[in-house]
Amino acid sequence: MSCGCGSVSKPALTGIVLTLTLYCLHVFALKSHLLTRHGGGLGTAAKDAVIKYKTLYFDQKIDHFGFLEDGTFKQRYLVNEEHWLQGGGAILFYTGNEGDVTWFCNNTGFMWDIAEELGAMLVFAEHRYYGESLPFGKDSYSDPKHLNYLTSEQALADFAVLIKELKQTVPGAQNSPVIAIGGSYGGMLSAWMRMKYPNIVVGALAASAPIWQFPDMVPCGDFYKIVTQDFSRSGLNCDANIKKSWKAIDNITATDDGLQWLTKGLQFVFPPEEDRRGGLQPLPRWPIQVVCKHIGFNPSTVSDHQLLVGISEAVGVYYNYTGNTPCLNTSSTATGNLGFIGWYYQACTEMVMPMCTDGIQDMFEPQEWNFKAFSDECQALFGVRPRANWAETVYGGLDIHSHSNIVFSNGALDPWSGGGVTRNISDTVVAIVIPDGAHHLDLRFNNEYDPHSVLSARAQEVEFFKLWIKQAKKKL
Amino acid sequence: MSCGCGSVSKPALTGIVLTLTLYCLHVFALKSHLLTRHGGGLGTAAKDAVIKYKTLYFDQKIDHFGFLEDGTFKQRYLVNEEHWLQGGGAILFYTGNEGDVTWFCNNTGFMWDIAEELGAMLVFAEHRYYGESLPFGKDSYSDPKHLNYLTSEQALADFAVLIKELKQTVPGAQNSPVIAIGGSYGGMLSAWMRMKYPNIVVGALAASAPIWQFPDMVPCGDFYKIVTQDFSRSGLNCDANIKKSWKAIDNITATDDGLQWLTKGLQFVFPPEEDRRGGLQPLPRWPIQVVCKHIGFNPSTVSDHQLLVGISEAVGVYYNYTGNTPCLNTSSTATGNLGFIGWYYQACTEMVMPMCTDGIQDMFEPQEWNFKAFSDECQALFGVRPRANWAETVYGGLDIHSHSNIVFSNGALDPWSGGGVTRNISDTVVAIVIPDGAHHLDLRFNNEYDPHSVLSARAQEVEFFKLWIKQAKKKL
Repeated sequence: MSCGCGSVSKPALTGIVLTLTLYCLHVFALKSHLLTRHGGGLGTAAKDAVIKYKTLYFDQKIDHFGFLEDGTFKQRYLVNEEHWLQGGGAILFYTGNEGDVTWFCNNTGFMWDIAEELGAMLVFAEHRYYGESLPFGKDSYSDPKHLNYLTSEQALADFAVLIKELKQTVPGAQNSPVIAIGGSYGGMLSAWMRMKYPNIVVGALAASAPIWQFPDMVPCGDFYKIVTQDFSRSGLNCDANIKKSWKAIDNITATDDGLQWLTKGLQFVFPPEEDRRGGLQPLPRWPIQVVCKHIGFNPSTVSDHQLLVGISEAVGVYYNYTGNTPCLNTSSTATGNLGFIGWYYQACTEMVMPMCTDGIQDMFEPQEWNFKAFSDECQALFGVRPRANWAETVYGGLDIHSHSNIVFSNGALDPWSGGGVTRNISDTVVAIVIPDGAHHLDLRFNNEYDPHSVLSARAQEVEFFKLWIKQAKKKL
Repeated sequence: MSCGCGSVSKPALTGIVLTLTLYCLHVFALKSHLLTRHGGGLGTAAKDAVIKYKTLYFDQKIDHFGFLEDGTFKQRYLVNEEHWLQGGGAILFYTGNEGDVTWFCNNTGFMWDIAEELGAMLVFAEHRYYGESLPFGKDSYSDPKHLNYLTSEQALADFAVLIKELKQTVPGAQNSPVIAIGGSYGGMLSAWMRMKYPNIVVGALAASAPIWQFPDMVPCGDFYKIVTQDFSRSGLNCDANIKKSWKAIDNITATDDGLQWLTKGLQFVFPPEEDRRGGLQPLPRWPIQVVCKHIGFNPSTVSDHQLLVGISEAVGVYYNYTGNTPCLNTSSTATGNLGFIGWYYQACTEMVMPMCTDGIQDMFEPQEWNFKAFSDECQALFGVRPRANWAETVYGGLDIHSHSNIVFSNGALDPWSGGGVTRNISDTVVAIVIPDGAHHLDLRFNNEYDPHSVLSARAQEVEFFKLWIKQAKKKL
């Protein structure tokens, strides 16, 4: 299903509008959070001066866990050695997530900021099936057979093999302690990397990594509850008016006139399907506050029409902040590099992350988590069925106390923190919570507007890195 | 290649005899060690009184690491709950190796001996592709496609999924701490189980587990060096005369008469191919000493003929101890349940264990480790090529210090100890060496002839189990 520019010619399409609207508003709410505070930072020119890398390729086995398929593909990785102390300086290794690795490289300023202090080599490794790292080239997504090697276990094995290769072939790297770093799904991978390959990485920073956003680990409603709390604190009546808007849509679309008005007069600008996760469009610095300004009505007195005009303007903040997008073309893929289809496949196999709403603790219409429906959709789309409990089995679930040297950082504003590790598990598996932070803010470049809490988090993270490096050196 | 009863009608077969003889003597030496002290123990009647179990089957996914193949197979497992303290008593979980699990169940008396003391449930899980646990029934070994899911990673995932299933479905098992136990390859699996799934097993006893018998970890000659040392200490001139025998064979087979004598007159009894690993035939209590009695010649004066008559008698100890095997039928499979073909496939993929001899530190003819030749043989046999470095990458190689709660036990007489962990790695990854022990003697039933060292090892192992159980209970 795609969200196109709303243009309904027949009353029979009422249902479509409603569905599209509900859906896109969900996306909007989710997206606004993923991006809270993502804006700002160093100017483009300043970043470009810092970010210089070699682009390299490594022959990876397509299948690490079977021997029948013995083919290889070119895994892309980016390297910067400018500050590296050859002969033992650390390697900061970004465990790439679901997208083009250059994007993560450019948006993980933290690594660039600390490279000199740590005398570290920077490596950004691309996740298989994303960016240029396609196991079967243009056929990689063609059918379930070609998609079969898109799993987190294979990706972790890629990272492990690549690191061993670097240590063996880069002069002076043999004794370099490697620290895994990642954000979001990449953060999950960095944590799992330390859990599964502690011989290969001496520690991991898992930023905004919802490793517990799996069945039976955290309540499925936590995500949207945090979304709602964020809207609640971002403007007067903001969450209340959004909650009220669902009924307003029902009321308005109950008549043909209302439907015409909603779809033609209001000109909702719907985002393309690929935009459902993450995003790159220009945004104000604290988008939810700007959004909420458009809907600061008194919910007791606002009319349905007034409310939806406000909602329409609010949605515009997200998808048309520059004012240059009269009506988005659904085929545009401003954020297509985040590999939506790939991630959906992963969600349809291992990354089963239940979400639900109840309309009481959150501002959304009640919607239960329906595994059966989800599984059927996966079967129809990809010819595979998700395995709801596999992630818990393979990655340890809530019981991760026997691991070591992992820092889980989370922004309290980030709805993904609901599935994150926000309390210390042991002396060496620790949590850092950034009260004013959204999705892996700590991984961004230092910025004059940074709240104290994120500066403190980054400083703590660097201290852990130094400790792990020291421990590793001691063992040599 | 199979070792049949030697019966050569034509001089042209010289090469065959030589090859067979060399080969079978190698087997003999290896085998004698694997079996040192395996004999004896409780009488059959006594054992039968103790060993009672339910045979159960669990639907396992054929492929845990891909989602295209969504089929299942019946994994067999054996359960005894006689002494189990329902509602939290420990579960001792045998991580089955390359063979019929009933064999390991019957030969791991240690678990039966300690079940009552620990109030433990016993579970013996069969390894996929062995015994009755065949992913594709009789087609499981038919081609590389069907063999593709025979890997240690898949086997470990089977164990992990099965344990979670038991905890969820067996009333009172939810809080039962699980300890992994295994010997030889099964011991490697138990150690790896704790390394990869520390959320699922609280600790592991890895008995005679050569987790370092992989490329570049230990010298490839260590195995046969230990074999030679064992022969050296088991009888006067024993290793010297075996070393000398290679040349004697060359000398004798250089003439037609000699060849006739060797193959017809001497009636070597060759073991079937399936007997190359492990074994079950009746044996004397300390077989090498008996073997060595047949070849206690003065190596300076013994004639080639005398020596080979002695060697022939010595081989008979192994393959014809009862005197009832005039000439073994190569199609007999007394130890066929050890799944030779399956293990060979595993060696041809992940379990690449280099072995070599130099004729100086050992009593064998020099033979280098030839990975290329081995790989070509694997390609010809199974259509796959081994990946020499994968085991090190995935299982940590020599660097296992960050793990916890693993006991590695080794018998100093066991040549596999050359690839084992025989020194403490940390406070919680520890080694127990049994000076008088051979291959996982500590896993056997208590026996009146047991040396003190093995009794002490078993006692230490039980103390570790109690400690791990106590730690686990504390965390609940």
